[in-house]
Amino acid sequence: MASIKLSKISTRAPKGLDKDKIKNITRGYLDEIENLQNLLYAENKHSILVIIQGMDASGKDGLTKDVFTSINPQGIQVTSWKAPTPEELSHDFLWRIHQHTPAKGMIQLHNRSHYEDILITRVHNWIDNAIAKKRMKSINDFENHLLENNNTTILKFYLHISHEEQVARLQERMSIPEKMWKYNENDLKESELWDTYMKYYEEAFANCNDPQWVIVPADQNWYKNYIVAGKLLQTLKDFKMKFPGIKK
Amino acid sequence: MASIKLSKISTRAPKGLDKDKIKNITRGYLDEIENLQNLLYAENKHSILVIIQGMDASGKDGLTKDVFTSINPQGIQVTSWKAPTPEELSHDFLWRIHQHTPAKGMIQLHNRSHYEDILITRVHNWIDNAIAKKRMKSINDFENHLLENNNTTILKFYLHISHEEQVARLQERMSIPEKMWKYNENDLKESELWDTYMKYYEEAFANCNDPQWVIVPADQNWYKNYIVAGKLLQTLKDFKMKFPGIKK
Repeated sequence: MASIKLSKISTRAPKGLDKDKIKNITRGYLDEIENLQNLLYAENKHSILVIIQGMDASGKDGLTKDVFTSINPQGIQVTSWKAPTPEELSHDFLWRIHQHTPAKGMIQLHNRSHYEDILITRVHNWIDNAIAKKRMKSINDFENHLLENNNTTILKFYLHISHEEQVARLQERMSIPEKMWKYNENDLKESELWDTYMKYYEEAFANCNDPQWVIVPADQNWYKNYIVAGKLLQTLKDFKMKFPGIKK
Repeated sequence: MASIKLSKISTRAPKGLDKDKIKNITRGYLDEIENLQNLLYAENKHSILVIIQGMDASGKDGLTKDVFTSINPQGIQVTSWKAPTPEELSHDFLWRIHQHTPAKGMIQLHNRSHYEDILITRVHNWIDNAIAKKRMKSINDFENHLLENNNTTILKFYLHISHEEQVARLQERMSIPEKMWKYNENDLKESELWDTYMKYYEEAFANCNDPQWVIVPADQNWYKNYIVAGKLLQTLKDFKMKFPGIKK
């Protein structure tokens, strides 16, 4: 992917968009997605891996809830990646990831992903450049393998918020009762490393093979949902799926 | 690996070798392996994936029993691959394999392997050349990934028997009570496809990256055990391991 500078990309919807109109369009998208997921499952030929990355409070959980709730849970599985366990650490970094790749006919959503293994790990200098380079190569090989061998389309979304928006959201978690369960005192410390994170995100985007990352302006949830739902819908449509006839 | 012609490689020990002497040497190897496995586990830096391939009745189970029994079972896991389940088939062919790769400090033995996905599948035309080529690339990428990211040394052994020896062993399974449980009427049909199997084995050997396959003359079990034990021992020695001190 061509190099990008995240600070040069707007975190907000283009001016003049009508929020209510966009919300309506998104609702229409979700209805279509619901139907096409049924076809994806029935046809049993394709699979989709949705990767959602973004800084703390960029709205990864909210996106999962807003865009993927209308999908029949029989056809979607969500994995929310946390810090690796000792067992996971005793294997290569893709070992745990590979186990949760989608079966044919399925959508698999990864809330965070194997990209953390070249993001947070670099920000904190847990790995050096040589290891990061090896990992980047493995990620490219792995993603290509899934596409070539299980017809897995990978959609990578980066939820792009401004640093100011992040700080505001983290502070909300200290004051709004319904959000306090998300508060983690460590998040504010991580937030101070913003520029370093941006640098390694940009590097990951630049070095990864197709499929390319979608940079989603994410300060406003309604616009974020619209972009992601639209991309997912278009992907499903492009499969040009058909219900199979009776099995012989 | 340079192209090889299996029919040109002897399936028997070099003439003049003293069977009893070799058996004694192998016993010494196994004692050393037992000790070094303990060090492998303690040091917790390396891991070994042992792949055993060969035609039916080439002695894969016998090798596993004879050479790996003396290893502390806490430090070794054996996976005997069968025909894939429907769940396994709904994923890429390496999905089930990756789950059974060795953790650091461990030896993992694969009795048959992901190479079946470019062997039996081709002999029976279940996959075409284009898919076989994709799979070969994935295998090379995958093996390289394990080495680079989990310090996994892969030892690949092809148990090389003659077609005549195979037929004799398969017939034994029909007459010796202790071997009847291994009899499968399908094996004799597969045996008729010998030349086609050899062709695809040779192709796999030629197209795979390092580490190279070890072609083990396997008509005589004592020689087969000697070669495999020797290679495993040398691998463990080459790690130049040390007991770690007390953890700080």
